[in-house]
Amino acid sequence: MRVKWPCEPWRIGYRAGMADFPQSHRDLLDSQVATLATIDDEGLPQLTEVWFLFDEGDVRVSVNTTRAKLRNLEQRPSCSLLVLDLENPYRYLEVRGRARVEADDDRSFAEKVGKKYGVDLSTYDAPEDGRVVITIEPEKVYPVDMS
Amino acid sequence: MRVKWPCEPWRIGYRAGMADFPQSHRDLLDSQVATLATIDDEGLPQLTEVWFLFDEGDVRVSVNTTRAKLRNLEQRPSCSLLVLDLENPYRYLEVRGRARVEADDDRSFAEKVGKKYGVDLSTYDAPEDGRVVITIEPEKVYPVDMS
Repeated sequence: MRVKWPCEPWRIGYRAGMADFPQSHRDLLDSQVATLATIDDEGLPQLTEVWFLFDEGDVRVSVNTTRAKLRNLEQRPSCSLLVLDLENPYRYLEVRGRARVEADDDRSFAEKVGKKYGVDLSTYDAPEDGRVVITIEPEKVYPVDMS
Repeated sequence: MRVKWPCEPWRIGYRAGMADFPQSHRDLLDSQVATLATIDDEGLPQLTEVWFLFDEGDVRVSVNTTRAKLRNLEQRPSCSLLVLDLENPYRYLEVRGRARVEADDDRSFAEKVGKKYGVDLSTYDAPEDGRVVITIEPEKVYPVDMS
């Protein structure tokens, strides 16, 4: 594990759909899973594996409205998403920023995510559950390769 | 991805060396890498892949004293470590808690970690760098299997 530190972030600042992820790590934006970090009510980082979609230039996650991670983000939008290269876990992309939470009442975004994974996301939800779209507005993007 | 939520934590509370990780996920404690979440000066979660050691019943990480993650933990000990099953990324163990930071002036812990990985950790350090031991004192442990 060769380590080149301190590591400077790729970019700071954000405009919708213009996140400008580095070419060296863009393949990871098509990965199957990512680790989403939120901050829980006790101030502890909460980590969960999530499905995600690189959608119109943004990294987005469809979240069931009953989930703790959504409650965290509604209170504290600070978040980070790490996409690990599963075949080389010394290579990854970290996207650190704030979550924008938007309704997905017609489930159009959940359907888009479902197409990526070949499933109907509503089969994972109870009939009364809603869905929201989480868009990560990056403040710092770190492309890392320690291999 | 079958999801069984809300997910209750495995345990709460901590005594040194008695973290009592669930049998179903103990194999992950021998994994090569884990994702360590700390909280940066702007309140954003910071995620990095780290080497770690399951040592005397505790999850521990050897950290070079120049690293941002250490500065974060000295200010805010809140942290979380996620060990992903790289062959089945729907299965993972999350250990959420507080970091106890202790000096490793004689580098005895760094040497222990080096034995796990078959390397000399000092080759990654500048001559003036120090090492500390981070021990995670778990408050919540989540064994997850959504596969």
